[in-house]
Amino acid sequence: SPGPGLRLIIDFCSRVTQIRTELDSVVDFWLRHSHDAVHGGFFTCLGREGAVYDELKYVWLQGRQVWMYCRLYRTVDRFRKPEILEAAKSGGAFLRKFARVSSTSGQWKCAFCLTRDGKAVKIQRTIFSECFYIMAMDELSRVTGDKDAQLEAEQMMKQLIHWVRVDSSDLGRPQLPGDVPTNSMAVPMMLLCLVQQLTEGRGQEMALKYRELGSWCVKQILQHIQRDGTAVLENVSLDGAELSGCQGRLQNPGHALEAGWFLMQYSAEWGDEELQRTAINKFVELPFQNGWDKEHGGLFYFLDVDGHCPTQLEWSMKLWWPHCEALIAFLMAYSQTKKPELLESFSQVYKYTFSHFPDESGEWFGYLTQEGKVALDFKGGPFKGKKKKK
Amino acid sequence: SPGPGLRLIIDFCSRVTQIRTELDSVVDFWLRHSHDAVHGGFFTCLGREGAVYDELKYVWLQGRQVWMYCRLYRTVDRFRKPEILEAAKSGGAFLRKFARVSSTSGQWKCAFCLTRDGKAVKIQRTIFSECFYIMAMDELSRVTGDKDAQLEAEQMMKQLIHWVRVDSSDLGRPQLPGDVPTNSMAVPMMLLCLVQQLTEGRGQEMALKYRELGSWCVKQILQHIQRDGTAVLENVSLDGAELSGCQGRLQNPGHALEAGWFLMQYSAEWGDEELQRTAINKFVELPFQNGWDKEHGGLFYFLDVDGHCPTQLEWSMKLWWPHCEALIAFLMAYSQTKKPELLESFSQVYKYTFSHFPDESGEWFGYLTQEGKVALDFKGGPFKGKKKKK
Repeated sequence: SPGPGLRLIIDFCSRVTQIRTELDSVVDFWLRHSHDAVHGGFFTCLGREGAVYDELKYVWLQGRQVWMYCRLYRTVDRFRKPEILEAAKSGGAFLRKFARVSSTSGQWKCAFCLTRDGKAVKIQRTIFSECFYIMAMDELSRVTGDKDAQLEAEQMMKQLIHWVRVDSSDLGRPQLPGDVPTNSMAVPMMLLCLVQQLTEGRGQEMALKYRELGSWCVKQILQHIQRDGTAVLENVSLDGAELSGCQGRLQNPGHALEAGWFLMQYSAEWGDEELQRTAINKFVELPFQNGWDKEHGGLFYFLDVDGHCPTQLEWSMKLWWPHCEALIAFLMAYSQTKKPELLESFSQVYKYTFSHFPDESGEWFGYLTQEGKVALDFKGGPFKGKKKKK
Repeated sequence: SPGPGLRLIIDFCSRVTQIRTELDSVVDFWLRHSHDAVHGGFFTCLGREGAVYDELKYVWLQGRQVWMYCRLYRTVDRFRKPEILEAAKSGGAFLRKFARVSSTSGQWKCAFCLTRDGKAVKIQRTIFSECFYIMAMDELSRVTGDKDAQLEAEQMMKQLIHWVRVDSSDLGRPQLPGDVPTNSMAVPMMLLCLVQQLTEGRGQEMALKYRELGSWCVKQILQHIQRDGTAVLENVSLDGAELSGCQGRLQNPGHALEAGWFLMQYSAEWGDEELQRTAINKFVELPFQNGWDKEHGGLFYFLDVDGHCPTQLEWSMKLWWPHCEALIAFLMAYSQTKKPELLESFSQVYKYTFSHFPDESGEWFGYLTQEGKVALDFKGGPFKGKKKKK
């Protein structure tokens, strides 16, 4: 009988096949159910069987779907199909036509949510719609060769950097005396992801253009290692100190794991072995240890580092995306280091994920109770679109 | 042995005793744990045993606690104690000193959340902090005789009416082309509650001053009866039509029940028997039928009228407050009509509520899973303060 090492590899090969099958089924689900042939763009609120239960078009998800179609088309042979390219272009055209809200100040603000025919419904006072807009435009330009899309991505990026590093008052949040400026993990993490998106394979000049920003993002992310290296906290002060109260004690294991593989990518690009070690120890292994539910399995959505009950009603739920981040993070960590314990952890996450989230009607459930029961049975919602894949 | 009618009454008497005991224990919990002797006001984030786990002071809850202390002091003999009066006054002083955010436009906007020493942390673009400010000021003026507090409540009310009925642009939500103006149940419901608060026992002139507003609120609330009278929907259009999508199909049984007893109070005040019948049939019995979980008991937080899965992650959770609203609504409906089936429904809600929410450490849990397990074990949080009592 095969030894434990060989067994791990055999298991792994069968998993690669299953991941491939799942990806095909997920892409097929969105190709069949999400395209709006009348107004362009994608329906994102899809029920268990794929029926549209709300026609609103969420901009995060429009951007992600354009990105996903383009990335698949560009990098995976079996998805290099005209149907996918056309859908990506059509989604991109919808985004460019409608996502940016007209503004007297000449800003590049995007709506959070649009009506079916593209009218803005809601604007968030954050930067994330814009982030996914950039992802979409840059990746689109890579498959179509459309230089304007690339320029638009860079222009939007300029706006984003201004909001994050210079002045966020345009975003519309009033400056309040009790509101402590915060380094929230999501921000440097997303910016680092964007730096990687914009620079990948674009040559020396682009790499140089965003080099300082990338290194700033890494520093900002590393500030979230707190409590003598025993925890990654979601919100810290601008100078990297712990904040008081619930906000300061908040852990979001999925975000930490996501930051982990962004850091690993960065460390590989720049050959920074110390950063690689930190990424794996502090942003992959540590949040996995702290965030895994020993009783029911799966990753908690939120935790309080001192063991208080988080105030988010959904804190104990198991969401699809932290599990995707964990799978990517452990696989990347293993492929960079070949340490078998990282493959073991991958297996542990894999077993939970693939036995809980996939559904026979196609696509994945997004939201389970702590005990692992399906809590919301739709396949796409305001925040859930196509699964991430790297 | 006693017949079913007598049994119901005997059960009821033992329940009155238990409710009384619970109320004493809850008030005691807040008296012991929530007072900030240094900065004034109340801590509202209290753990299971009463420890302060976050020093932020939520304005909704400051206002509610002042209101509750005053109302108990004024109307329930055993709470007519100097300790309660002093705490109410101190809370009122904290609110008046800090809750209103300074604004260049001379507005009466309140913060949503303050630091321990009263600095504004967050402002909501809604009217609810102001609503609870009014509740507090008016009730405070009734126990202290402070005319200024009463005037301040009326002044704030004027601002509120302006936002709701004339122009809401000051609240800071951008007007967006895809954002359909909505009659959201919470707004006329809260305004009706405020009308009752401001006018109760204040004589003819005050009654007259808010008479048209009260009747407008009732009309706005009745617009939420939809689908040929088979459902109360949380959001409708300004002319009372059903809205499209999730927002339009949303049911919030707790809100409907709450509106129900506000309407019953109003109908009693104006001797409107048809309104009383509508309130009981459509806003008490109907949401109870539609909102009760036949499998696990308890009231769902949100439901979709067409049976789709709501997009709110917490839709299936059982929260303390809808159960309090249901208890009040059924008891009021019974006391107005003496129909035994209303007392039966009260009993059903009572059994679930009193076997799930109270905790031996004092106060109640606020948030259970669908199955009735405690999901968040704190006693006070950003939205949970002292239980309602009427």
